[in-house]
Amino acid sequence: MFESAEMHHEVDEKTYDKDIEKLREELVDAQYDMLEDKSFPVVVIVSGFDGAGKGETANLLQEWLDPRHVRSRAFGAPTEAERLRPPMWRFWSALPPKGKIGVLFGSWYSDPISQRFENEIDDRELDTRLEGVRSFEQLLIDDGTVIVKLWFHLSKKAQRKRLKELEDDKLTRWRVTKNDWKTFEKYDHFRKTSEHVLRETSTGAAPWLVIDGSDNKYRTLMVGRALLAAIRGRLNAAPKLKKNPKKTGAGATPPSAVSMLHTIDTTAILKTLKFDEVVEKADYKKRLAHAQESLGKLARHQGMQKHSVVAVFEGMDAGGKGGAIRRITQSIDARAYQVIPVAAPTDEERAQPYLWRFWRNIPRIGRFVIFDRSWYGRVLVERVEGFASEEAWSRSYREINEFEEQLASSGIILAKFWLAVTKDEQMRRFKEREATKRKRYKITDEDWRNRKKWDEYVVAASDMIDRTSTPYAPWTIIEANDKNSARLKVIETLNDRIKDVF
Amino acid sequence: MFESAEMHHEVDEKTYDKDIEKLREELVDAQYDMLEDKSFPVVVIVSGFDGAGKGETANLLQEWLDPRHVRSRAFGAPTEAERLRPPMWRFWSALPPKGKIGVLFGSWYSDPISQRFENEIDDRELDTRLEGVRSFEQLLIDDGTVIVKLWFHLSKKAQRKRLKELEDDKLTRWRVTKNDWKTFEKYDHFRKTSEHVLRETSTGAAPWLVIDGSDNKYRTLMVGRALLAAIRGRLNAAPKLKKNPKKTGAGATPPSAVSMLHTIDTTAILKTLKFDEVVEKADYKKRLAHAQESLGKLARHQGMQKHSVVAVFEGMDAGGKGGAIRRITQSIDARAYQVIPVAAPTDEERAQPYLWRFWRNIPRIGRFVIFDRSWYGRVLVERVEGFASEEAWSRSYREINEFEEQLASSGIILAKFWLAVTKDEQMRRFKEREATKRKRYKITDEDWRNRKKWDEYVVAASDMIDRTSTPYAPWTIIEANDKNSARLKVIETLNDRIKDVF
Repeated sequence: MFESAEMHHEVDEKTYDKDIEKLREELVDAQYDMLEDKSFPVVVIVSGFDGAGKGETANLLQEWLDPRHVRSRAFGAPTEAERLRPPMWRFWSALPPKGKIGVLFGSWYSDPISQRFENEIDDRELDTRLEGVRSFEQLLIDDGTVIVKLWFHLSKKAQRKRLKELEDDKLTRWRVTKNDWKTFEKYDHFRKTSEHVLRETSTGAAPWLVIDGSDNKYRTLMVGRALLAAIRGRLNAAPKLKKNPKKTGAGATPPSAVSMLHTIDTTAILKTLKFDEVVEKADYKKRLAHAQESLGKLARHQGMQKHSVVAVFEGMDAGGKGGAIRRITQSIDARAYQVIPVAAPTDEERAQPYLWRFWRNIPRIGRFVIFDRSWYGRVLVERVEGFASEEAWSRSYREINEFEEQLASSGIILAKFWLAVTKDEQMRRFKEREATKRKRYKITDEDWRNRKKWDEYVVAASDMIDRTSTPYAPWTIIEANDKNSARLKVIETLNDRIKDVF
Repeated sequence: MFESAEMHHEVDEKTYDKDIEKLREELVDAQYDMLEDKSFPVVVIVSGFDGAGKGETANLLQEWLDPRHVRSRAFGAPTEAERLRPPMWRFWSALPPKGKIGVLFGSWYSDPISQRFENEIDDRELDTRLEGVRSFEQLLIDDGTVIVKLWFHLSKKAQRKRLKELEDDKLTRWRVTKNDWKTFEKYDHFRKTSEHVLRETSTGAAPWLVIDGSDNKYRTLMVGRALLAAIRGRLNAAPKLKKNPKKTGAGATPPSAVSMLHTIDTTAILKTLKFDEVVEKADYKKRLAHAQESLGKLARHQGMQKHSVVAVFEGMDAGGKGGAIRRITQSIDARAYQVIPVAAPTDEERAQPYLWRFWRNIPRIGRFVIFDRSWYGRVLVERVEGFASEEAWSRSYREINEFEEQLASSGIILAKFWLAVTKDEQMRRFKEREATKRKRYKITDEDWRNRKKWDEYVVAASDMIDRTSTPYAPWTIIEANDKNSARLKVIETLNDRIKDVF
């Protein structure tokens, strides 16, 4: 991958001066066009050899573009808040909103490369990581993001020269650390590791651009041109995408795959439930107290120093989510949990990929977060109501599974509950809510509208349970006609999930 | 303050059942009305003696109200991210948006009370803290926030009884820690400390309500009624406030004070500037390299382990803010700084008090944050264009000074720059921008409109400099007709500010 970049490239002053002025004009124009278009963000990843011009590129973009619409973010050692969450959390929070450009130094590539280089992980583990990187980038691309991956390369000779130059200039001397020279001594090893990473992650929709970093002018022109081509390419393609909005993103599921999904009937999952379990009040009180005591102890167990808990509640309207959630929170210290009710997204959230607003609320180790409705809205209400295109919701199953796998593998205990009630019981509860003044807010026209689509919701929920029940994040179906038994089953299941891990 | 609460209060079951149903109905109605009104948030502060029902109140509100519009937040020991920022930072981030209710356990009262109780601070320091608390609450109130401060009280006898009850129940035993008993032994001292704090912070607009916590039913009714009265009171007052929008908030500056402001002419500050300093290119290059080297060293100095830097840039359009900022960022590691361009607020930001979006970007210790335009927009463009009412911008001076004092006293080094150019020089730059294609984005119709209001901006900027130049956050006026000398003065002043502290 580095062969071309190691052939020395140079641009003479005259060509440079002529080209650069025009390039800068075009870049600013492109930036303003994407700002107005507001349908996609651009992520620029700046990686490569030390001394190859990464920092200079940062300053350059800052100077060329309107800096008010560029978000630069450099990643060093993770902060405590970052260490206590899944590794990708800090990158999600750094994504630029639609219409803007994000420049990332030390991106999701830094750790895999440096850990392999330091022999902290082996080839197999590296490839698992890179698989994760590809999935993440695919998710961004499917959401419309333009990813520009720049690798600044230097030959061994050029890097030695560059590091010496930096050291000799007292203004830049600090930038060359002992570690840089140590890395330089293992130049060949670093080159080999990076080359492997680049090859494995250079995809059709997000290819790496390897740029010879030895000549300032050449490098500068290349960066500018690459960025311009990426923005313009996307803007020119946009009208086509808009005509056929269902096919957004390079990796969108082909229509054939979607219709294939429809051929499988999964509804037996929800249609064969038994609602006969009833727990009487006295028994309920005793068992609830016991379960709450256990949960309280688990929440204070030393296992929570390595884990956190994410509980997800979904279900038919009036399924009793709120009541079940309160039975959980009653037994946990208020400082240790947070309930996240999922409603309409804010504009900051709308300008980001779908999962962004859930990543935002992922708890640090030691804490509980309970989602009252969740990321599953994508394959439930958004599917049934047509808010998301078929391609969007059908690729969500995979995105969600990968998301939850990331949570689980970083020590988050996941429990997901589907609160099922029969259609008759729902009607009874709707009427009760209407009759009780202080419960009337719980019943809206939307609930009645949703009820008319009961069968469609059963299909959507069944597909969801079928496709997203995984060993690391299983669904638990709660037959919730009887509130007592439902609440007990929720809290007892949650306890079991936690105990299994501790 | 506790006399009434120490007289035992009880409510009989019959009265309770009758009242509670109606109260819950009315609360939900009120919650929905404020949600629709969307002009103010409610902050409920839950404090008091251990065992007096703080946790129960949390669960209660969660159960009574529509929990999707209630944000509960409990504060324990600060996280690393919180420890590395000013103490109020975590409370700002927990404020509910307009239309919603925030329930805070362990609010801004916890530290002052417990630190005084533990003799970590003396009476004088406590009173300084409480002065800060009052200012903060006044800021919220002026912004329209309704603050409900609940203190759950227990007499010594009642607390002993309650702690024992909690200990005897295995479900609640964990809630009683050794520390609780230790605190109990010093009941009188704790009572005295809290009473002082409550008295000092019970203001007309945000009085404390002391509630006898010994009877569940009584406590429950009191909490519900207090919250209802607060929301309804504000909703009923709202139409009047709307008729006369300039007088929002209880603490708004009276009109007489505003017209008094106008009698002082501060414009000499900006009208007597001398623009004769010119630095030639060769000299500039040498001095800039030197200044950048110093700044680079300061950014890596061990003093940054205790401090961070906030630099604020304001100035007339085309004053050269961007260029000056880039000369700073060029010398700092990209991981150590962030440039925050201040543009239109997002909807999450609009639903909060004005300063919220700046608090959001306050750096942790060790970092630089550079604001390209800032919170001073309130007293500049918002004043001149009439976006903020006179009362709003005129009370901002004080709010801003207090904000900056908080930053400074937590170790943040503040440097504020006003980039002044003459009217002729501005015209020259506007024309140059129009003539240079890649600079055209820098000149908009708005710039021409602002130019027409040149004199008003001079008045606003002069008042601003006059009223917000403080020892801990002084303004530096930069005569910026000559870019070289302006950039040098900015970076050299910044270096001096940092050196003074290290």
